[in-house]
Amino acid sequence: MPDPIQRLADELGDAFTAEPSALQRARTDRSGWVSDSAPSGIVMARGIDDVQAALRIAAEHRMPVVPRGAATGLAGGAAAVHGELVVDVSGMDRILQIAPDDELAVVEPGVINADLDAALAPHGLWFAPDPASKDISTIGGNIATNAGGLLCAKYGVTREAVLGLKVVLAGGRVLRTGHRTVKGVTGYDLTSLFVGSEGTLGVIVEATVRTLPRPSGAPTTLVGFFSGVRQAAAASAAITAARLRPALCELLDAASLEAITAYLGEDGGLVHEPIGGGASGASLIVQFDDADAGARAAEAAALVRGAGGTVRLSSDVEEAERLLALRRAFHPALAAQGEVLIEDVAVPRSRLADMFEQIERIEREYEVRIPTVAHAADGNLHPNFVHRGPEVPDVIWRAAGDLFTTALRLGGTLTGEHGVGVLKRRWLREELGDDSYDLQREVKAVFDPFGILNPGKVFA
Amino acid sequence: MPDPIQRLADELGDAFTAEPSALQRARTDRSGWVSDSAPSGIVMARGIDDVQAALRIAAEHRMPVVPRGAATGLAGGAAAVHGELVVDVSGMDRILQIAPDDELAVVEPGVINADLDAALAPHGLWFAPDPASKDISTIGGNIATNAGGLLCAKYGVTREAVLGLKVVLAGGRVLRTGHRTVKGVTGYDLTSLFVGSEGTLGVIVEATVRTLPRPSGAPTTLVGFFSGVRQAAAASAAITAARLRPALCELLDAASLEAITAYLGEDGGLVHEPIGGGASGASLIVQFDDADAGARAAEAAALVRGAGGTVRLSSDVEEAERLLALRRAFHPALAAQGEVLIEDVAVPRSRLADMFEQIERIEREYEVRIPTVAHAADGNLHPNFVHRGPEVPDVIWRAAGDLFTTALRLGGTLTGEHGVGVLKRRWLREELGDDSYDLQREVKAVFDPFGILNPGKVFA
Repeated sequence: MPDPIQRLADELGDAFTAEPSALQRARTDRSGWVSDSAPSGIVMARGIDDVQAALRIAAEHRMPVVPRGAATGLAGGAAAVHGELVVDVSGMDRILQIAPDDELAVVEPGVINADLDAALAPHGLWFAPDPASKDISTIGGNIATNAGGLLCAKYGVTREAVLGLKVVLAGGRVLRTGHRTVKGVTGYDLTSLFVGSEGTLGVIVEATVRTLPRPSGAPTTLVGFFSGVRQAAAASAAITAARLRPALCELLDAASLEAITAYLGEDGGLVHEPIGGGASGASLIVQFDDADAGARAAEAAALVRGAGGTVRLSSDVEEAERLLALRRAFHPALAAQGEVLIEDVAVPRSRLADMFEQIERIEREYEVRIPTVAHAADGNLHPNFVHRGPEVPDVIWRAAGDLFTTALRLGGTLTGEHGVGVLKRRWLREELGDDSYDLQREVKAVFDPFGILNPGKVFA
Repeated sequence: MPDPIQRLADELGDAFTAEPSALQRARTDRSGWVSDSAPSGIVMARGIDDVQAALRIAAEHRMPVVPRGAATGLAGGAAAVHGELVVDVSGMDRILQIAPDDELAVVEPGVINADLDAALAPHGLWFAPDPASKDISTIGGNIATNAGGLLCAKYGVTREAVLGLKVVLAGGRVLRTGHRTVKGVTGYDLTSLFVGSEGTLGVIVEATVRTLPRPSGAPTTLVGFFSGVRQAAAASAAITAARLRPALCELLDAASLEAITAYLGEDGGLVHEPIGGGASGASLIVQFDDADAGARAAEAAALVRGAGGTVRLSSDVEEAERLLALRRAFHPALAAQGEVLIEDVAVPRSRLADMFEQIERIEREYEVRIPTVAHAADGNLHPNFVHRGPEVPDVIWRAAGDLFTTALRLGGTLTGEHGVGVLKRRWLREELGDDSYDLQREVKAVFDPFGILNPGKVFA
């Protein structure tokens, strides 16, 4: 048998590349994690046939396969090493069907999240999953990681938007899962099993996704300014307790506000006044999108004041965009300061203030700064570590480890929406426990008996 | 080793019974399907320990186990035969925790759906899954079948309400899945794998369920009267296309209206005027529960009239209850006429009218009456066959088979919300295809290597 690289080049022609700069790029994703070496080849799949051929040849040679899309992942899940074959589906980017009467769309995995949403808008439809990366991340990647975002407390995570999948299995067979219907209970929910499986069970080559009617009214946006995160978290909890159901509720701590202010400038066009109370300040950005958004926002404003906050309220769409731009400026603001390790713990909503308190403890104990933003309505926090140089310093890993075990102790999880990839695999067994961990590996073996689908990811 | 019955009696004491009338009851559920013989024993579990002991002893003797709750299932999934051990968890009916700040509840599997909802109401919270059986069915059973209901197009099926599970596996080990958080992507989604698995992977002994804020406004209810199902289906499609997002949208065909009228009487207190247009009539019951429910209902009323219907509109809560009572009277009305086989196909919403047309064809071809109601907004139809005597006549099975293959041909599924159980297992492979069917059996084998968990259910 000729070597696999030769066979891939022969059978896949132009779709196969071993061009060094392309191979180098495939060592990393947006997490900043870089693998030890470059993969041995890349299939730039033009369609399902290419993916099938790649997986057939790879299986025959027991060559590991790393599925890859736009590589915007934050856990190293799409990074490959020497000996591995990257199957890049970012070029499979056609919207195959929009079925307005069925409120669904059928897409190839490389379709950019925001592009699908734009294509749905003329039909009054909406693709609700909204990871912060939605302008650059693909639907396939969103599904592979069960991506979250800002709207999940009200509108659900990516899983809720996936009706069915077409997947190429190890060896090249095509599996269809799920339905074109909202309901369907024939057999096991393999669709959900693939959602969030991070490329370890198969390569997603098509998705049937559920769409929602676009919210009709103009949203009302509220920004609360507080003296500290405890007050902001209390206001968020009060809004939850009043059952006001905001579409989003973002909490920014003092270090985050400081970074954003440094990045945008206090009079940089977006910020018309200092957005926090200085080093100990915190801010809450809340948006309501129901028909009675104004009334809900007014009620929320009273709760924000009750928690000691001051309020800016707006039902102007452009003003709302400006306020949300503050939140979106967070990651660029940190990236301007150095390399960023973005963490992603989630805790039960009621433990949000406790988690912030623990983050302050970890900052003191390890003498590191941890600017943190939170999707407050669903208890998902993104504590960030900024460092210099390509290697994450050991003290940051130790602080992150403390962060993870603390989140678990508070009843939470070590990753709310970014996935395990390589960066969190060493803590996975601790969260799942031995029984679940071992069963999950057995489930993987059903789909991947030779262990060649994204090996070393998720499971250590 | 003593025989398993003796061991169960010894170890479980009062929780074990082989009392003949109890064994006889366990031969059936609400589907009307009755197994050939009675099971060999029943464990009336008082807690997790009992379930663990039962599954440990059963595994040691390779004795098949049939999990059972309130036995309101409609596919024969909880019916047992000679040689099998029933593990009845209906007595495990405690609400273990309501956490209003986290908008979740932790329940034992035997908690009645409506009881949980009632307990949540004082907190402004709501358990959204609403199978028609909610007053008598258990949360555990709802989860085991991924039960649907009237509100699913807007509020999702049971799966969307389950955050995590505690499951006793074959052999007696306890597995925890999922999270207490809204988000969480550590490893595979085993929670969703258990949802809808119909007792074939383990026995659910605890569930952490997500709750929603109760809709705040008074709903507005619309009843449309049409000359036929085509017009009613067109009105439903127009309401979907206008993105009005009703909470529920129920379609009743002429035979259904006739049965309800016969049951309630035209002046029986609930019905103040004939509710249909006679033998060829059809009705649509639509409810809006957003803050602008009245405006949405008015828009829907115009669409109903545009489709040739006449409209009754009400924002009175009691009137709404009376109108919905018509729909709820459907099953009792049929049951008053004889034995009922309730079917449960789903098709893409856009094929609803086509499916009704096919049902009329099947009625003519097999010379049977098929009164049908549909959750129109999600394309889920319940065609019903009424017959005399305990055995389903062969002609009805042939008509049902035609119904299933027709639904599949229209892009649908043979069960939207009732499950496969024993009644639909012979068609499952046709819907799933060989690859998916075989993979699902391999997944089962991971959790149930001896094949003793609800054998013969789902998979033939």
